[in-house]
Amino acid sequence: MHRIQKLRGPFQHFRSHNNELLQSFALVNNLSTTAGKVIPCKAAVAWEAGKPLVIEDVEVSPPQEKEVRIKIKYSSLCHTDLVYWESKGLPPIFPRILGHEAAGIVESVGKDVSDFKPGDHVLPVFTGQCGECPHCNSEESNMCDLLRINPTREVMISDGKSRFSINGKPVSHFLGTSTFSQYTVVHSGCLAKIDPQAPLDKVCVLSCGITTGLGATLNVAKPNKGSSVAIFGLGAVGLAAAEGARIAGASRIIGIDLNPSKFEQAKIFGVNEFVNPKEHNKPIHEVLTELTNGGVDRSIECTGNINSMISAFEAVHDGWGVTVIVGVPRADAVFKTNPFLFLNERTIKGTVFGNYKPKRDLPTLVNMYMKNELKLEKFITHRVPFSEINRAFDHMIKGQSLRTIIDMEG
Amino acid sequence: MHRIQKLRGPFQHFRSHNNELLQSFALVNNLSTTAGKVIPCKAAVAWEAGKPLVIEDVEVSPPQEKEVRIKIKYSSLCHTDLVYWESKGLPPIFPRILGHEAAGIVESVGKDVSDFKPGDHVLPVFTGQCGECPHCNSEESNMCDLLRINPTREVMISDGKSRFSINGKPVSHFLGTSTFSQYTVVHSGCLAKIDPQAPLDKVCVLSCGITTGLGATLNVAKPNKGSSVAIFGLGAVGLAAAEGARIAGASRIIGIDLNPSKFEQAKIFGVNEFVNPKEHNKPIHEVLTELTNGGVDRSIECTGNINSMISAFEAVHDGWGVTVIVGVPRADAVFKTNPFLFLNERTIKGTVFGNYKPKRDLPTLVNMYMKNELKLEKFITHRVPFSEINRAFDHMIKGQSLRTIIDMEG
Repeated sequence: MHRIQKLRGPFQHFRSHNNELLQSFALVNNLSTTAGKVIPCKAAVAWEAGKPLVIEDVEVSPPQEKEVRIKIKYSSLCHTDLVYWESKGLPPIFPRILGHEAAGIVESVGKDVSDFKPGDHVLPVFTGQCGECPHCNSEESNMCDLLRINPTREVMISDGKSRFSINGKPVSHFLGTSTFSQYTVVHSGCLAKIDPQAPLDKVCVLSCGITTGLGATLNVAKPNKGSSVAIFGLGAVGLAAAEGARIAGASRIIGIDLNPSKFEQAKIFGVNEFVNPKEHNKPIHEVLTELTNGGVDRSIECTGNINSMISAFEAVHDGWGVTVIVGVPRADAVFKTNPFLFLNERTIKGTVFGNYKPKRDLPTLVNMYMKNELKLEKFITHRVPFSEINRAFDHMIKGQSLRTIIDMEG
Repeated sequence: MHRIQKLRGPFQHFRSHNNELLQSFALVNNLSTTAGKVIPCKAAVAWEAGKPLVIEDVEVSPPQEKEVRIKIKYSSLCHTDLVYWESKGLPPIFPRILGHEAAGIVESVGKDVSDFKPGDHVLPVFTGQCGECPHCNSEESNMCDLLRINPTREVMISDGKSRFSINGKPVSHFLGTSTFSQYTVVHSGCLAKIDPQAPLDKVCVLSCGITTGLGATLNVAKPNKGSSVAIFGLGAVGLAAAEGARIAGASRIIGIDLNPSKFEQAKIFGVNEFVNPKEHNKPIHEVLTELTNGGVDRSIECTGNINSMISAFEAVHDGWGVTVIVGVPRADAVFKTNPFLFLNERTIKGTVFGNYKPKRDLPTLVNMYMKNELKLEKFITHRVPFSEINRAFDHMIKGQSLRTIIDMEG
């Protein structure tokens, strides 16, 4: 049965697959016309912090050594795009092409790329897997030395230059992916080759947030069947963490959020209890400790707020409690706690990209989706054509969306 | 070969075994004369904080429900005895019979004790295993709800009374064990039954510190073969942690201590690099990070000093580094660190008794010793007769000893 599914994909996706597969063939056929040449296309350019993106005509240079040029089919908006678009307290890097959660098709490959060919369906990823460094050689880490997330890098690492330009002037890259462009260039280590039957307008969400939350639970927190898991922050990453808890068989999945409007939506991700810190006049770790007779078995912190991190840790049960830090804190944050909490056999650890190795593990997650073991549709709340990409930002700012899919041809 | 060793024990211990086995038989034969009766014996009583212990004639009541009365053959002095003897900043509980690291032979059992009988060879433990609570039923914890370490409890839990008295006046228990008495009463959940061939004057050290350090590495830090492990504090617990690293196959075992005289001794426990913080004018985590090209793979904190804990955590490598907290901090200590260190996939966790479940796991450790897989002799630096127990304290205060064995009949 799995084999048939792999060949055909779920029926509802057949039409979009068909289109994408036809495009793959077209890309391969066009190889001789575009490979090695500059490609003119549309990109949404952030010219200033917090100002609407502008769809511009950009030129995308050919991929260099160990690089791949991709036709981006779908992007989805992640909160990290918003953070670097707003650039509050961050070095302003503009003009820049944001975007890092996406799916596309390989157009051409640069020198020394043997694992991709034109027509391959791929997910670009903000963190990579060079395959050679101590992290890539460790079963315990996914933090590749060479291709680790670097939000301030504006250029490609092979030659320190940008592949994007407008009227000859360079435009900065973002997270090595810049997927708000119809074509982009990424390091081949930041690409995962996936089942060509997978619908790119769905699996694009696996290239960042959903995978991050899911892996935080399944790979790092590892809750036991029947256990309790507290999720701090019910955005897309938190809900993916809840989905991981549901898949792992946790029986109590407690969502913590200051916004009660998120609770109804969270139910479809397995969250079955809710705590709004605003409704309690005692520290939230005390509320959780009382609620669970001693503390939750696992907690996953997805807000990045330092007080929430401390609460998440102090809310876990002695003897076996594990907290996983997923949310990115402010640069000046300080984590403070009573060291006896460690001594009493509590654990705190953090994760990037849910400890998944992108090249190795994303194909597996795509296959889980294709086998219906992982639901991605419920994370996708909105869709916009590329020309209306700024609406995706509006939805996120207003807290209306989980994931807005941007059709890069629309 | 193992079988023969198990039957006979290492040759050098044969004589003491023989004596102990004869005493077991004698105890069983004497059962009718002592069981159910008060036993008069000698105990070293702490009358005041920091004042030499006094060998007194005490009366030891019969064991009550779920209790066992033991003839203590050998005690060894652990740093925790010293801490509660000095009682600096702690509630003074005197007169008290200290001692918790020991080995003995069961004299009689109370009501509802089915897993021990007179003549059994046992190790009393400061933390127990009731077998029924959520911790005992969890594979992840050894922090039994009922019999967890409680240094301020002065009495037995079954009836809230002491089993020790001098001229009719009660004398306080310590850690539920009070092994500085020739006879003591412990909860049956705080006892591990061991191979009767095991020499009690050696395996007594397994009932606290050595097991704590060994388990911190083998059960909690779990270093990979060929990895680097930093040990903060080269006392007996730290050296046992080093021994665990050696057994696990770590290739770099880095000892950190302010006292360079400990370095020579540490070599026999596998420590092959040394760092004295006094010899560096930069934070010790920076020294270790440079020494190991990015951080140690594992660190084990055995001093209890809060700055040492923070250094131990900040010295581990991103992606996979794990710190294990073993040392007991001051009550007012605050652990502070940069939360990005968690996010970059570092882990901090703590352990009590090396995560070993005492009843279940101590017999296995004793068997490891009997099979020569675990060396205990090198931890034993001094021996004193019971009458000279205060010399054991002197050795420890002067930093001369790792473990001083106290012969309870001497």
